[in-house]
Amino acid sequence: MSIQNFKLHIQYDGSRYNGWQNQKNTQNTIQTKLETVLSRMVDAPVQLSASGRTDAGVHARGQVANFKADTTMTCEQVLSYLNQYLPQDIAVTTVELAEERFHSRLNATEKTYVYRIWRSEIPDVFQRNYRYTLTCPLDLDAMRQAASFFWGTHDFQSFCATKPGKKSTVRTLSTIELTEKGKELRFTFTGNGFLYHMVRILVGTLLEVGQGRRQPSDMAALLEAKERGQAGYLVPAEGLCLERVEYGKDA
Amino acid sequence: MSIQNFKLHIQYDGSRYNGWQNQKNTQNTIQTKLETVLSRMVDAPVQLSASGRTDAGVHARGQVANFKADTTMTCEQVLSYLNQYLPQDIAVTTVELAEERFHSRLNATEKTYVYRIWRSEIPDVFQRNYRYTLTCPLDLDAMRQAASFFWGTHDFQSFCATKPGKKSTVRTLSTIELTEKGKELRFTFTGNGFLYHMVRILVGTLLEVGQGRRQPSDMAALLEAKERGQAGYLVPAEGLCLERVEYGKDA
Repeated sequence: MSIQNFKLHIQYDGSRYNGWQNQKNTQNTIQTKLETVLSRMVDAPVQLSASGRTDAGVHARGQVANFKADTTMTCEQVLSYLNQYLPQDIAVTTVELAEERFHSRLNATEKTYVYRIWRSEIPDVFQRNYRYTLTCPLDLDAMRQAASFFWGTHDFQSFCATKPGKKSTVRTLSTIELTEKGKELRFTFTGNGFLYHMVRILVGTLLEVGQGRRQPSDMAALLEAKERGQAGYLVPAEGLCLERVEYGKDA
Repeated sequence: MSIQNFKLHIQYDGSRYNGWQNQKNTQNTIQTKLETVLSRMVDAPVQLSASGRTDAGVHARGQVANFKADTTMTCEQVLSYLNQYLPQDIAVTTVELAEERFHSRLNATEKTYVYRIWRSEIPDVFQRNYRYTLTCPLDLDAMRQAASFFWGTHDFQSFCATKPGKKSTVRTLSTIELTEKGKELRFTFTGNGFLYHMVRILVGTLLEVGQGRRQPSDMAALLEAKERGQAGYLVPAEGLCLERVEYGKDA
């Protein structure tokens, strides 16, 4: 027996998938595609744990996942096998051996998501699946002011699509940045964790501030409300990408 | 009657089309898609002339085309209408009025094509449809030396997929550049015109030089041979993109 714990960096175009996680009613998830190839590779069932799920249509440049398998294959062999048999819109960019205790979700310390908006009425066909097009005028200063209310540790219940339960909805955001690059507006969020739909509701809320439909100072009351109905709209999945996952020095 | 000559800049992801030009057996060409929308727009048949056809799977960032129509619509209205009704992988980036005599093919003075190669075994899923993956070692110096034989005016019969006929196969290339950008190798060709498959055969031939299967000095004899069979292989369409078309000051 030579059980090894493999840590993978994974990139995917989520456009045609029903999200990361295995589902009962469909084989069309990224986890299922990967587990199918992995199980064939080691000729045994393989369970792949990711840093977290991504929703239908959401992309990743730096998803991290790990699996344990009884194999003598090297990391290079695993990398090469996976990229040979995976669909073209899923790629594994690195494979390394991790400590036996390493768990891609439990040990994750920070994640970074980027949401991209295309601000022109002239489409860019080569990026059509990776940006949300919104051409109305936006007051970026107001949006940045509003975003500053979310920095730090808060209860993000208002920005979460699941009903209040026993689980904590407190999260810490260490970065919220709005940057312009030509006609692209880019939101960058780094935090110790994200609730269901949290990034997309935060972006929707900030866009409503940018359009003058909310004031930056409204954000404090919005956090206080702890009610999804008070926050802004859910922006489309296509603009969202999980850029990277960080692990503490121990992992 | 108010017949106007509209000049368009067009961008497309050619992946799912059978090329630019109208065909008898399929509606699935870029020209057909555009003419269908244009004809509906002006409620009359519209004929669109492009600077030249592109093959199945080839992309464009700066295709130029023109059409004449009896309409009082402004350029802004045409632009907006087209982008509203075109498929998401075809976009019109500018619309302007041209002289009555302007013809996008006959008046074109130069075209630039770029061919992109991905040099890593690790796929980049977001660019998967726009690059040809080739990971073997390449001697770029030898390739640049070989490319220098093609600069200037030559009979490119050897690099043309159609059989010799009455039409001239002499063309002038003013630029052939090989540039590296990270793991991407980019070929840029500017010339007064390109024969059928010419760019893709030139790239295939230069890649064979890069792999040591031909010598740079062989290029002179290859041009002399005027025989397709002597030249290198046809690289896949997906890596090719028509970047821009230039017109003299009169057009």
